[in-house]
Amino acid sequence: MAWATNVLVGQSGGPTAVINASLAGVFESSKSLGIHHVYGMQYGIEGLLKGKMVELDSYLDDKMQIELLKRTPSSYLGSCRYKLPDPDVDERPFQKLFALFAEHSIGAVFYIGGNDSMDTISKLARYGAAKNSEIRFIGVPKTIDNDLMFTDHTPGYGSAAKYIATILKEVICDSSVYDIRSVTVAEIMGRHTGWLAGAASLAKGSDCDGPDIILLPERTFDENAFLNRVAELEKTRHNLIIAVSEGVKNRDGVFLCDLVSTAGQLDAFGHKAILSGTSRYLADLIRVRLGCKTRAIEFSTLQRCASHLASRTDITEAYQVGGAAVEAAARGETGKMCAIKRLSDLPYLITTETVDVDKVANLEKKVPDEWISADGMHMTEAFEQYARPLIQAELTPIYINGVPRHIHLD
Amino acid sequence: MAWATNVLVGQSGGPTAVINASLAGVFESSKSLGIHHVYGMQYGIEGLLKGKMVELDSYLDDKMQIELLKRTPSSYLGSCRYKLPDPDVDERPFQKLFALFAEHSIGAVFYIGGNDSMDTISKLARYGAAKNSEIRFIGVPKTIDNDLMFTDHTPGYGSAAKYIATILKEVICDSSVYDIRSVTVAEIMGRHTGWLAGAASLAKGSDCDGPDIILLPERTFDENAFLNRVAELEKTRHNLIIAVSEGVKNRDGVFLCDLVSTAGQLDAFGHKAILSGTSRYLADLIRVRLGCKTRAIEFSTLQRCASHLASRTDITEAYQVGGAAVEAAARGETGKMCAIKRLSDLPYLITTETVDVDKVANLEKKVPDEWISADGMHMTEAFEQYARPLIQAELTPIYINGVPRHIHLD
Repeated sequence: MAWATNVLVGQSGGPTAVINASLAGVFESSKSLGIHHVYGMQYGIEGLLKGKMVELDSYLDDKMQIELLKRTPSSYLGSCRYKLPDPDVDERPFQKLFALFAEHSIGAVFYIGGNDSMDTISKLARYGAAKNSEIRFIGVPKTIDNDLMFTDHTPGYGSAAKYIATILKEVICDSSVYDIRSVTVAEIMGRHTGWLAGAASLAKGSDCDGPDIILLPERTFDENAFLNRVAELEKTRHNLIIAVSEGVKNRDGVFLCDLVSTAGQLDAFGHKAILSGTSRYLADLIRVRLGCKTRAIEFSTLQRCASHLASRTDITEAYQVGGAAVEAAARGETGKMCAIKRLSDLPYLITTETVDVDKVANLEKKVPDEWISADGMHMTEAFEQYARPLIQAELTPIYINGVPRHIHLD
Repeated sequence: MAWATNVLVGQSGGPTAVINASLAGVFESSKSLGIHHVYGMQYGIEGLLKGKMVELDSYLDDKMQIELLKRTPSSYLGSCRYKLPDPDVDERPFQKLFALFAEHSIGAVFYIGGNDSMDTISKLARYGAAKNSEIRFIGVPKTIDNDLMFTDHTPGYGSAAKYIATILKEVICDSSVYDIRSVTVAEIMGRHTGWLAGAASLAKGSDCDGPDIILLPERTFDENAFLNRVAELEKTRHNLIIAVSEGVKNRDGVFLCDLVSTAGQLDAFGHKAILSGTSRYLADLIRVRLGCKTRAIEFSTLQRCASHLASRTDITEAYQVGGAAVEAAARGETGKMCAIKRLSDLPYLITTETVDVDKVANLEKKVPDEWISADGMHMTEAFEQYARPLIQAELTPIYINGVPRHIHLD
């Protein structure tokens, strides 16, 4: 008898540009290992609890579908932000899920996601073990935030980093177009960690100085030190570029963006205004205190969905961890996450390994101290050595009628 | 004797992803027509008045530099927003400029820009004629806004349109990831015309429905009609996408973004808040009035500098009009703009022609009525027939170390 008749795969949390490449990896590896049907949960475990499942075999039955899937941003299967209860406290969702698994002869469940998704895998595996279930539960890492422990990096991060570095480089070109002094503040995602803001440093090359200042949530914002640094840089540079993580806080532990939105402002309808605004806050601060022309740019949701600018390294690795997760299940592993292990920087080489999902779930990996410059306002070369390989190479979109072609579940 | 010993070229106004391709066209055509030196004004006519000139020959002396120039966003020579006075009122800047032209044996001046730049060419040509100067003055059209008269379209528009259509398509993928109702409002550049917002319709294809509503400055915003339309669409769709031009006004002639910023809000420093916010205004309006989850996204300055996603058609045409401008000067024309004339839609064919620059200067081309749907909230097929050819094909960036390589004047 084969290791499993059918398998089930889901996607969870915020999407990335390459989360569908992991789905492609799970699908193709399952098929190559003799799996009969690959089912997909729609809208993650939350959708599955409502019985939303689809048999993927007919949707992904030729190689062109797989190529389009690798180039389609967002979650092909839909996603959710849903945390299962502790099975010891509330067994009901688990009973429902395991009944569904049995009904569809599911031998392995793969869940592509971040910390919360690893928590889901952990609870399913724990419940399964308690019930002597043969089903294997394997997590596939995914997050642009790169904040998962016990993996060198997460699929999704490289593409977000490549997007950030590339468009910052273009914004830097744009910022020097007029013969006037200016400060541009670019706001980058990352509520708790500075991996994405740090990627702004990758804009640097022999044709570009990169950002002048990078602010990360790992360092407390010191207004005086910051303004002094800006004033100092302005003595030698015409156009300053500052990259700031949305999650930077002051010494009172308050997000800079909340300093704006708690100023009692109302929107045009008399409601409290929603002013996303770490970059807006800093641009205002510099304008008011240093009397300089400033502009704020938010890099927005494109950071997680710009598949037209994905890193080929990232796409390849996302596919690989999907495949390696299936192989781990075939070997009989369960309650594991398939991680990336770096073998060397130069040449850049990785392999995959499995780690205990309980170790990963609900933890958060910060940018190490030694990768942040001594003044806390830039990255060191060690960070570049880590991050630069992750943004290498491209996977050309398939352009039809002038725009990239995607694939969707009907 | 050759038609000119040396020529001078400048760039003006807001940059585009392809304004440097026009510079490349001017440079290479001049060289092929026997010009000795090609000079560049730094920071446009304003920089030139301060004596800022550079001899380009040594900077662009091999084909790789030209290829990089075509792929570098923003203005290689720097730009300005500067309007020359009427020569009949104040002759002094013209005396200064023509002295510089004589000093450097300049036989022709090319100015790459929009309406204001054509005004500059017009005044220089008028002054030159009055002084019996032999110097030829030719304008090269450029603007992402596509609002110049007497040219089928402007170089720069196609790339901005391709960027808008592509990233909107990716945002649409992202917007449906969760199983909840939502409205996404994307804010697109265009203070006075809806050419760019209209380009959002190009996201549509067999794999994407495109935006559900498009609002242009050519139509007065009618709050009730808009909310009724949103409510109607919500009956059949889970996730609505609205593209709005930043320049949409209400029936009182007030920009929607000013309805936000005149609400008496102060920033965190007690100054009047700068809330760019047509999309924010509409997102708030829908949230408050229809009780729906909304988000606002500004497409930002990337619309004019995303050369990594430029349209190859646009780059080629930008280069062509630069070259055609040089040929027009060589024929002895002056006071002209080099325009694009469309010969057919299918196959898409264009040629270049010269038009009197006085006809172009200071005018603004609106989106024609018949290209806007009857309800004023979408585009017709005739618009797509016009715009689709302009976003065709790509010019792959030269990626080095994972990011596109650019070229800069030292």
